[in-house]
Amino acid sequence: MAGNSFGKIFKLTTFGESHGIAIGGIIDGCPAGLSLDFDAINTEMQRRKPGQSAIVTQRKEEDQIKFLSGIFEGKTTGTPIGFTIENTDQKSKDYSHIKDIYRPSHADFTYDKKYGIRDYRGGGRSSARETACRVVAGAIAKQLLQNLQITAYVSSVGEINLNKSYSEVDFSEIEKNPVRCPDPQMAKKMEEYIKSIKKQGDTVGGIITCVIKNMPVGLGDPVFDKLHAQLGKAMLSINAVKGFEFGSGFAGTAMKGSEHNDTINPDETTKSNYSGGIQGGISNGEDIYFNVAFKPVATIMQKQKTIDSKGNKAIAEGKGRHDPCVVPRAVPIVEAMAALVLADFWLLNKITKL
Amino acid sequence: MAGNSFGKIFKLTTFGESHGIAIGGIIDGCPAGLSLDFDAINTEMQRRKPGQSAIVTQRKEEDQIKFLSGIFEGKTTGTPIGFTIENTDQKSKDYSHIKDIYRPSHADFTYDKKYGIRDYRGGGRSSARETACRVVAGAIAKQLLQNLQITAYVSSVGEINLNKSYSEVDFSEIEKNPVRCPDPQMAKKMEEYIKSIKKQGDTVGGIITCVIKNMPVGLGDPVFDKLHAQLGKAMLSINAVKGFEFGSGFAGTAMKGSEHNDTINPDETTKSNYSGGIQGGISNGEDIYFNVAFKPVATIMQKQKTIDSKGNKAIAEGKGRHDPCVVPRAVPIVEAMAALVLADFWLLNKITKL
Amino acid sequence: MAGNSFGKIFKLTTFGESHGIAIGGIIDGCPAGLSLDFDAINTEMQRRKPGQSAIVTQRKEEDQIKFLSGIFEGKTTGTPIGFTIENTDQKSKDYSHIKDIYRPSHADFTYDKKYGIRDYRGGGRSSARETACRVVAGAIAKQLLQNLQITAYVSSVGEINLNKSYSEVDFSEIEKNPVRCPDPQMAKKMEEYIKSIKKQGDTVGGIITCVIKNMPVGLGDPVFDKLHAQLGKAMLSINAVKGFEFGSGFAGTAMKGSEHNDTINPDETTKSNYSGGIQGGISNGEDIYFNVAFKPVATIMQKQKTIDSKGNKAIAEGKGRHDPCVVPRAVPIVEAMAALVLADFWLLNKITKL
Amino acid sequence: MAGNSFGKIFKLTTFGESHGIAIGGIIDGCPAGLSLDFDAINTEMQRRKPGQSAIVTQRKEEDQIKFLSGIFEGKTTGTPIGFTIENTDQKSKDYSHIKDIYRPSHADFTYDKKYGIRDYRGGGRSSARETACRVVAGAIAKQLLQNLQITAYVSSVGEINLNKSYSEVDFSEIEKNPVRCPDPQMAKKMEEYIKSIKKQGDTVGGIITCVIKNMPVGLGDPVFDKLHAQLGKAMLSINAVKGFEFGSGFAGTAMKGSEHNDTINPDETTKSNYSGGIQGGISNGEDIYFNVAFKPVATIMQKQKTIDSKGNKAIAEGKGRHDPCVVPRAVPIVEAMAALVLADFWLLNKITKL
Repeated sequence: MAGNSFGKIFKLTTFGESHGIAIGGIIDGCPAGLSLDFDAINTEMQRRKPGQSAIVTQRKEEDQIKFLSGIFEGKTTGTPIGFTIENTDQKSKDYSHIKDIYRPSHADFTYDKKYGIRDYRGGGRSSARETACRVVAGAIAKQLLQNLQITAYVSSVGEINLNKSYSEVDFSEIEKNPVRCPDPQMAKKMEEYIKSIKKQGDTVGGIITCVIKNMPVGLGDPVFDKLHAQLGKAMLSINAVKGFEFGSGFAGTAMKGSEHNDTINPDETTKSNYSGGIQGGISNGEDIYFNVAFKPVATIMQKQKTIDSKGNKAIAEGKGRHDPCVVPRAVPIVEAMAALVLADFWLLNKITKL
Repeated sequence: MAGNSFGKIFKLTTFGESHGIAIGGIIDGCPAGLSLDFDAINTEMQRRKPGQSAIVTQRKEEDQIKFLSGIFEGKTTGTPIGFTIENTDQKSKDYSHIKDIYRPSHADFTYDKKYGIRDYRGGGRSSARETACRVVAGAIAKQLLQNLQITAYVSSVGEINLNKSYSEVDFSEIEKNPVRCPDPQMAKKMEEYIKSIKKQGDTVGGIITCVIKNMPVGLGDPVFDKLHAQLGKAMLSINAVKGFEFGSGFAGTAMKGSEHNDTINPDETTKSNYSGGIQGGISNGEDIYFNVAFKPVATIMQKQKTIDSKGNKAIAEGKGRHDPCVVPRAVPIVEAMAALVLADFWLLNKITKL
Repeated sequence: MAGNSFGKIFKLTTFGESHGIAIGGIIDGCPAGLSLDFDAINTEMQRRKPGQSAIVTQRKEEDQIKFLSGIFEGKTTGTPIGFTIENTDQKSKDYSHIKDIYRPSHADFTYDKKYGIRDYRGGGRSSARETACRVVAGAIAKQLLQNLQITAYVSSVGEINLNKSYSEVDFSEIEKNPVRCPDPQMAKKMEEYIKSIKKQGDTVGGIITCVIKNMPVGLGDPVFDKLHAQLGKAMLSINAVKGFEFGSGFAGTAMKGSEHNDTINPDETTKSNYSGGIQGGISNGEDIYFNVAFKPVATIMQKQKTIDSKGNKAIAEGKGRHDPCVVPRAVPIVEAMAALVLADFWLLNKITKL
Repeated sequence: MAGNSFGKIFKLTTFGESHGIAIGGIIDGCPAGLSLDFDAINTEMQRRKPGQSAIVTQRKEEDQIKFLSGIFEGKTTGTPIGFTIENTDQKSKDYSHIKDIYRPSHADFTYDKKYGIRDYRGGGRSSARETACRVVAGAIAKQLLQNLQITAYVSSVGEINLNKSYSEVDFSEIEKNPVRCPDPQMAKKMEEYIKSIKKQGDTVGGIITCVIKNMPVGLGDPVFDKLHAQLGKAMLSINAVKGFEFGSGFAGTAMKGSEHNDTINPDETTKSNYSGGIQGGISNGEDIYFNVAFKPVATIMQKQKTIDSKGNKAIAEGKGRHDPCVVPRAVPIVEAMAALVLADFWLLNKITKL
């Protein structure tokens, strides 16, 4: 109810502030009998982790997951999976420079007004640190959906666009460069651009494309819980996201029906796939693909005009180690959220018909 | 659970197929003591209704709402508001031409595969007729939120774009033309384009922009139920929607943090509003604005290759009276869904702090 | 959220006041492909209906169900089943004698205080008329669970107790007498007692016992949603219910563990069944049995001291046709609620393990 | 969905097995700005703790709560309150004697059948150890409801019944004896009886009565979520509970309406209170009172016939330190669950009317 849970059947509830003792969560509704690959879970955590390359924040967070329940002899038991991740790098800092200041385009002002109280140590609950919990749950959801292939990559950084369809790129290139762009030349350009932006103490936005292959037919619920509506909500819930489009997306608005309609082949595939694998909110077996727009990170190493909590004029200036561009580290988060949505519908679909 | 409900506190559940006896719904959680303006509700229904102009479908649906409960002497009683709308134009038709055929980019194929059974009379549950129920509930939500001003309009039809910020247009022009575009010249162009498309038996997509003024600070929940995530889900759940962006949206991905950040003025307003009135998922009091992308309507008056339910090749061809462009009639639906999201958060916000 | 929905997967939401236009509901989450036996549904409605015998209220309500959606060619389609039941006997009455009066042990006072407004025509939303909708949904749930045998009967009226275990009585006798007691002699006594109470203008309470045979193992969720906790909530939500006990119940508190424990036989049955077929909140395959306590109906044909809505002293006196004892008509309601609980868990159980 | 959450607004989700690393939970929806009294929380934990007297289990569990989030400078922040309690006494034990054996009237058999896998170390998820998390959340709920007085006590142990109304006893006596019975003489008898039962290696059941004073009018939702239905579910979800009755309860079934009806006084109180403070599912301001029946603990120090997981005959025999009677330690759990139900409705009631 208060916004800290995601999913209907495979349900994740998270807790934790960026600079508290720990963050963590409960995964409730994971079926019993799933053999967990803990290395695979940790690999996902490493992909999201700070400090993994020169173009991301140099903060040190070990992001060690401690599973507390719901797993016995390596298998899920059907009972809730509780887990925590300690905030090792967060202790005994000095927050006096941000304690009373509302940083522009951060959630400081809105949290203070909504709750009348705010954990001013870093982003608190509004920090993207919370997404570490999503990656844990998403990694388990992926294992539940082992036949599906969920792949996200960076398709744009600032004004540098990949400008290629997902079918034209080589997914095996994605993890070979720190930007996570499947085109090595483009990745290099993006990397250099991010470095130059970082030098300026500035930040930049970008776009992540996500593709789901080997989709079963029939996932998604009609009307309000359409598959793309849940995917859209999942993506828009990630920090810094400003937009979501699937299939033909915004460009599809300029097309005619006679161009856009995906005629159906005798083998039940479609000739084109402007629908993005979803019709009437339900998967049709074609590839699902969508774009997620991320704004430039709000924390910049430059002086900005703002006010403090008493309404006095003030100056905000970022300190410490922040991401100049969030998209490389957001790739596993996008995949995790997609996995959560799909796991939910995959389970629900088992009880849709007699 | 099965996707037919929307909202956490102010909750709408709908039922009904396009060609059944009636559609309808239950609004549960509307506070007691709200004096309802039934004329205002009917006005919203008229805006969505077929047959209202030459550029929309000429089907005749009276869309007479029958309130069955939850209202006493003109006021809400706090008990569920049940209502039905009869399907007056839907009876005794011949559906043999679509009975077994999977129309391209419709939900025929996916419903059949998901449920193993399909009400083949028209779109059934996947028809946009269902949105009439959303307009009923949205009209009541609007009355609950009487201080807020929720305004949607058409900002693009096919390749014809308004290319103006919402602050540059005159909202009072919107309802003066059948396209619902606030710029009279542009509206004329769009109208003519829709007419030409209709003559070709084709359809075209478009974009609706929605603006919410007089927003209170503090609406929206952290993490998964961010205000824009719920708005996004609400919009993506509307038939034919392919994308959603708020504030700077996809264009914001090309900006730098130093440009994009909304510095805060001493009066708690922000200098720019790239955030689109939402920070950390919570409203900051600035105007909320977002775009919703609609694909071209799938039903076209042209022959298309497809298959029937036995896997045989078949030809689909639209018959009867369909919309050549859905955006003019979708304007009140976008407003209704926005109102539902806001009513929910407005109520939840009353119990957020002591 | 507002209390008008029941169930997690197989979900019923109801609406309607006793003297409004109609009552009705939406059943969301019924799997597709269930062939409905409408005669069986109507039979359940007849069992609950007023006027069926001399010992129940003589009100005339046809209780004609109008299904509006979710059913096609006699089968469920997986989309929501909307239905209404008109309030045929309720129109143009004179309610001036109860308009401002708070009837003792009715919900008049509490509704007025909670909502600040009250539909004073009869019981409004608090009337047991609402249970007609539960019987509709329960009858469908029963058809989903066709292998299970859910049987309720009257085991006590006032101080007249059957004093027999469910295994000692003949279920085929239940529907042969108007009290719905499986022991013909006892039924006669109860019937006469109810008649004498009615003559006095008074009312009396009673107990319904419900037995579920052919239970599958594994229904029920741990911790908060234990099978008996959901059954208890379901029963306590029925009008006039004051208590619930299952298996050994209150009497079991006086037993020792060595007597109460149900030792397990090699065929996985248990020797005794003090557990009432439920261990750790999950069915173990033995018969489930429970008792539901109903208070005497609050509407009596006698003068009672009370106050009006302005705090003035007043006299309440029942008029019209009311039940002297509610248990005979509540038997199908108890069964319906049990069926709703079981249908929910039966569906959930399909996704509990890989 | 999977049964590990309780509450609609003030929502507790728990995790953890009795012999895993830790148990814990997330409280989501507690309003911001509540100053927490941690001593009061610990006092509740001490009341539930093993080893507190000679008549309860002598296990040693420190039950140290570690709050991880949602609290800042002693106040709730409106974000989820995550907490863990380590299982300090549970490590490196030998479970070979129960590994494959289905203990009679335990959940071993049902968990194994439902999930196909079972954490055989102690009761796992079905252990009453889980209730420690409920006491944490309940203690916070109590602080939210500081004007209400929620008091539970033992009113029966085996066949020894207090046989006094709650209005005839002195609540200040409850915590002065290890049984938590408000009558010192009766408490002594119960204590001796429990000791004799313990010597026999046997166990015995009992009844807890709970009273809520200073109730506001208007808590509870109509139809399915009646205040007593939620209280009933809450109580029935506690381990070993077999029954629930409120107000006149089962005894009320033998009364006539003319005796049972609570006539209303000019000051809006009622003359009698057979309704138990609840009419139509909504509190009327009178005291709420209810009884909760607990069966004898299933673990006895005697040999019992059973089977193992392969269907072979086996002998189960309790080892170690177990409660001979659960009711003394269950008193704070009953209060905690009552507090959770009331906190939920207290918050919901703030948005019921305009």
